[in-house]
Amino acid sequence: MGKRIVIALGGNALGNNLPEQMAAVKYTARAIVDLIEEGHQVVVAHGNGPQVGMINVAMTTLSREDPKHPMAPMSVCTAMSQGYIGYDLQNSLREELLNRGMHESVATILTQVEVNPNDPAFQHPSKPIGTFMTEEEAEEMRRRGNAVMEDAGRGWRRCVASPKPVSIIEIETIRTMVDAGQIAIAVGGGGIPVIREGNHLRGAGAVIDKDFASELLAEELDADSLIILTAVEKVAVNFGKPNQQWLDTLTPEQARKYEAEGQLAPGSMLPKVQAAVKFAESKPGRTALITLLEKAKDGISGKTGTSIRQ
Amino acid sequence: MGKRIVIALGGNALGNNLPEQMAAVKYTARAIVDLIEEGHQVVVAHGNGPQVGMINVAMTTLSREDPKHPMAPMSVCTAMSQGYIGYDLQNSLREELLNRGMHESVATILTQVEVNPNDPAFQHPSKPIGTFMTEEEAEEMRRRGNAVMEDAGRGWRRCVASPKPVSIIEIETIRTMVDAGQIAIAVGGGGIPVIREGNHLRGAGAVIDKDFASELLAEELDADSLIILTAVEKVAVNFGKPNQQWLDTLTPEQARKYEAEGQLAPGSMLPKVQAAVKFAESKPGRTALITLLEKAKDGISGKTGTSIRQ
Repeated sequence: MGKRIVIALGGNALGNNLPEQMAAVKYTARAIVDLIEEGHQVVVAHGNGPQVGMINVAMTTLSREDPKHPMAPMSVCTAMSQGYIGYDLQNSLREELLNRGMHESVATILTQVEVNPNDPAFQHPSKPIGTFMTEEEAEEMRRRGNAVMEDAGRGWRRCVASPKPVSIIEIETIRTMVDAGQIAIAVGGGGIPVIREGNHLRGAGAVIDKDFASELLAEELDADSLIILTAVEKVAVNFGKPNQQWLDTLTPEQARKYEAEGQLAPGSMLPKVQAAVKFAESKPGRTALITLLEKAKDGISGKTGTSIRQ
Repeated sequence: MGKRIVIALGGNALGNNLPEQMAAVKYTARAIVDLIEEGHQVVVAHGNGPQVGMINVAMTTLSREDPKHPMAPMSVCTAMSQGYIGYDLQNSLREELLNRGMHESVATILTQVEVNPNDPAFQHPSKPIGTFMTEEEAEEMRRRGNAVMEDAGRGWRRCVASPKPVSIIEIETIRTMVDAGQIAIAVGGGGIPVIREGNHLRGAGAVIDKDFASELLAEELDADSLIILTAVEKVAVNFGKPNQQWLDTLTPEQARKYEAEGQLAPGSMLPKVQAAVKFAESKPGRTALITLLEKAKDGISGKTGTSIRQ
């Protein structure tokens, strides 16, 4: 019996530049089409960390060389990254489907996602983007009103806020596609972050976490499952210690206990588990799965991965 | 009685940089929503000349500064331009609709358009893109395998082929949206140009004329009308001469006669009239309209513009 599944691809499913991306999406497409071939209805969401960073650098360089072009805001860079990634992704999914004799339509919906201007994340920009800078360059960037941070001893980077998603502006179109049996690629890079001002949507200087955006998408589409792909097959506790333990299942209560114990790495496994828990608690019967891309099919049939449910 | 209308926006409806675009789309949105308010079903297509040029320059600059990033092909630049333009356009349409108490969904579909690798246009790259270069820079670009051309005494520019559109890859999704009463923004910049190689679609080093792509979209959606917006209210013959004549109507036969007489400027009015004629001849009852953006509503009710029909 087919399930409705939202699948959240991480940056490592997409590569760091164009040739890497074109290779990575082929592999990614096979894993996704495996699920579609099993009869599941799949909606694809994805991150954009390296890509939006690259576009931000390209557009910043342009504005330095040609004053006619002001700095492109993060919202615009994210919109461009949805085009950059969606093109390769819809192309490779289409090809993989056709290679298996399947004729489902695939398309990318340019997606805006509302954030709350009072989200505390705006007071604490935490997401590093773009290239590394010297301390002097970082100071100059700070003087121009941007937040900067030292990134794990590797140099300074610009950083932006990562507020929580509140609503998906283009949800009706995504739902229409999914209901028609089509494969939608949506909320790319967590969605273009926008703030509601009456009927106007203003672009926000932020990047939305793609796991939380995918979770919201899964809720709004009334999905059965949310698959969050990552670099490990299962969530672990006591990671790297003698008593390390891989988890087959995780309840919201257990997850909160592990979080309180500091078992889940902030900026890495923690937001994935939090998004998974939010989905599992949003309605009885909903299940989140955290696993490797190549284990998605086995995971959804209960053979591996960490399954999070009430 | 509402019509199904494909509207093709020119570059002048979008501005040359981000602040210009954000201002231009508001004005553009009002003219489009005027049509929707009259009960018409509208699909929006648009050009991307200045925008894809800007993105091409930004990505070229990036690849020069960071060898990790190879030159982005035109297909990728067009995909990014669909994100860049679609974001502002869907946003401004949504806002204008809400301001009038209308709740239609609006979204941009990332669109690939197939071209024929044997299209003679590939032998004669004719569409200038990107910034102006000196003759020496142009020579260097030519040595790297790119076509270049001298552009109307203003300097040298890179140029790419402008092949005819053959099919719209994401047509099913666009049709699903339109049938559901939603406003689709599609085939931006004429669509991402791709060549079919078995099940694979390979990006083409080309830019598809947006009027021909819009025409194909109108045919495939079985639209009643195709509106091609331009900088004049009507098509003229003997333009600028004492016997100049503005045309209220134009038949395919008349259009071919004027074309043979050299009355229609190549690269400007000629492709618009050719696209209009192709649509008018594709099925009895279909009408194309060439007019100004702000006259679209009056044009569709027969009050102005040049109406092209069999």
